[in-house]
Amino acid sequence: MFAFELVRSEGPGGPRLGVMTTARGRVETPAFMPVGTYATVKTLTPEELTGLGAQIILSNVYHLYLRPGVELIWRLGGLHRFMNWPGPILTDSGGFQIFSLAAFRRISEEGVSFRSHLNGDLHFLTPERVVELQEALGVEIMMCLDECPPYPCEEAELRRATELTYRWARRSLAVWRREGAALFAIVQGGTRADWRREQAQALGELPFAGYALGGLSVGEDKETTYAMMDAALPALPEDKPRYIMGMGLPEDLVEGVARGADLFDCVIPTRNARNGQVFTATGPLMIRNAAYAQDPRPLDPACGCYTCRHYSRAYLRHLFQAREMLAYRLLTLHNLYYYLNLMAEMRQALAAGRFADFCREFYRQRHNGGEARG
Amino acid sequence: MFAFELVRSEGPGGPRLGVMTTARGRVETPAFMPVGTYATVKTLTPEELTGLGAQIILSNVYHLYLRPGVELIWRLGGLHRFMNWPGPILTDSGGFQIFSLAAFRRISEEGVSFRSHLNGDLHFLTPERVVELQEALGVEIMMCLDECPPYPCEEAELRRATELTYRWARRSLAVWRREGAALFAIVQGGTRADWRREQAQALGELPFAGYALGGLSVGEDKETTYAMMDAALPALPEDKPRYIMGMGLPEDLVEGVARGADLFDCVIPTRNARNGQVFTATGPLMIRNAAYAQDPRPLDPACGCYTCRHYSRAYLRHLFQAREMLAYRLLTLHNLYYYLNLMAEMRQALAAGRFADFCREFYRQRHNGGEARG
Repeated sequence: MFAFELVRSEGPGGPRLGVMTTARGRVETPAFMPVGTYATVKTLTPEELTGLGAQIILSNVYHLYLRPGVELIWRLGGLHRFMNWPGPILTDSGGFQIFSLAAFRRISEEGVSFRSHLNGDLHFLTPERVVELQEALGVEIMMCLDECPPYPCEEAELRRATELTYRWARRSLAVWRREGAALFAIVQGGTRADWRREQAQALGELPFAGYALGGLSVGEDKETTYAMMDAALPALPEDKPRYIMGMGLPEDLVEGVARGADLFDCVIPTRNARNGQVFTATGPLMIRNAAYAQDPRPLDPACGCYTCRHYSRAYLRHLFQAREMLAYRLLTLHNLYYYLNLMAEMRQALAAGRFADFCREFYRQRHNGGEARG
Repeated sequence: MFAFELVRSEGPGGPRLGVMTTARGRVETPAFMPVGTYATVKTLTPEELTGLGAQIILSNVYHLYLRPGVELIWRLGGLHRFMNWPGPILTDSGGFQIFSLAAFRRISEEGVSFRSHLNGDLHFLTPERVVELQEALGVEIMMCLDECPPYPCEEAELRRATELTYRWARRSLAVWRREGAALFAIVQGGTRADWRREQAQALGELPFAGYALGGLSVGEDKETTYAMMDAALPALPEDKPRYIMGMGLPEDLVEGVARGADLFDCVIPTRNARNGQVFTATGPLMIRNAAYAQDPRPLDPACGCYTCRHYSRAYLRHLFQAREMLAYRLLTLHNLYYYLNLMAEMRQALAAGRFADFCREFYRQRHNGGEARG
């Protein structure tokens, strides 16, 4: 059971408001998915995620396959029960991880063999097996195994990877059992706008439940990222959800929504929190900065999150400098609140037909703000 | 404002039920104080501590003096506001830390000079200054600066430290302003029962708000620890609270309560949680044990804590092996729940006049249990 309803759209290549319906609940789009790589959104409980307004989270079949193992999770009743998260889950196929983390990999038409980045064990995965693993986890949305080329990449190599990803998507579709999870295809194509468009069209003709752009935010400049969205998104079927994988900063989400993307995920809010970077309406700040040592203000005076309602920058800086785990929790809470609230504000603006105003105000605040004025 | 009421007592040297009243609320005794060294009970929020039933927490003037500094906390409105904990706080004077952590120390009649274990800076503290620092933090209960001798210790050295601690207690008393925080004296005396008794009597004649036994659980065997309690506790004034510092395992709390102690603190439930040791009714278990890799049961089937209501041993082991911070949070929650619930059960047993039954049942469960049966 999976459905996507377009509530409001400003035309092909324009922003969209929608609702995804899954067996485990509704997801209002555009939506941001907090990242729970190892069956935990780092530092937080599921109840806290719900309190922050998260309606769907992302996990990763590559990581769970290596540790603790998909079969173990299946035996224990599936990923939702294992991690105590009742809502929808999307799992990435691990294509990106195999190509960025594994100590060794060898690609063939059949699949990919690689060594675990944890212990060097040799593994072999095929597109079919990756669908099977995600079905065993019991998630609501599965991603096809893809080959994620590096950036920069030789054209011949990029072409080969892009076409292999397409053929693997067809094989994934052939084994997809449909009664459970939705299957999304991944559009590759590197920084070639024409290949992105071609792949979007070719995959869009196949009956996937949704589509993603992969291989973005891997080192290319922002103009290129946005150009790839401009090329691919309008070429995808309008009535299916569109997901930009692994992106990005707050402004990237705004730009993605403006171009018609519906789903996002990124480690930035959670990982940067653990490194002390905090997002605010006027731009980011680094909590370890000595300027905050005696600062009684909350991280963001405009923010309504638990952290901002109860703690000063001085206290948070103290916890961070003392490497106290509560620092990572409180900063993670704040950053995810910021991201999820940003998405909620965009949805409200879309519903009210004032998304252009929202974008102007978003950039105006950042232009006037910045750490110097924080 | 500070008062202690003895609700029920089984006579000198026997268990007691009481209530401490402070400006920031009541504390039912016997009570366990979670340790918040750096103005945070590691991994948890104040709301979680309240949810666990904590009525008072402990912090440490030595640590806060070094980082972030007492003056900074004072400027920001005091320790409660700084850390967002609304209830009573007891601060240790730092005597134990100066003697166990500092890189260098030189003791004189006047006070103690030492180098910070963080950066080597030289500091000098006197008993008077330590009272002043705790008053600046705004806590409800302050401890006198003491000299905490090591174990084992030469008799002459032990005698000197014990007597200096007494003279420092008198000096602390002389500068105590009384309108705010309560001041507790610390009984030293090492493993000499006669000196413990003598010190308890001598300090007990002075008008402190309460008394503590320091320098226990520092390496001596359990029989000795209990013998020191047997010697000192009955010699203290019956109408004042009695606090055993830095102790201990669950059985130590039971033995302490049985001997008439009212307050306890220890890093064991929190620190051991972060090392994967979990307390249960049938004894401790180590979550990293491979036996739990596929175990669907909660940590303790008899436990009602958040962790036990929502997570399997298999999931907790996975998080712990992956070094996920949520592991430390969930195990800390469980262990503190165990400790605080143990104290609540002892108070209930005392109120019902069946403490002896409680002790029998406590030891029976552990005798029948243990990790092999966990």
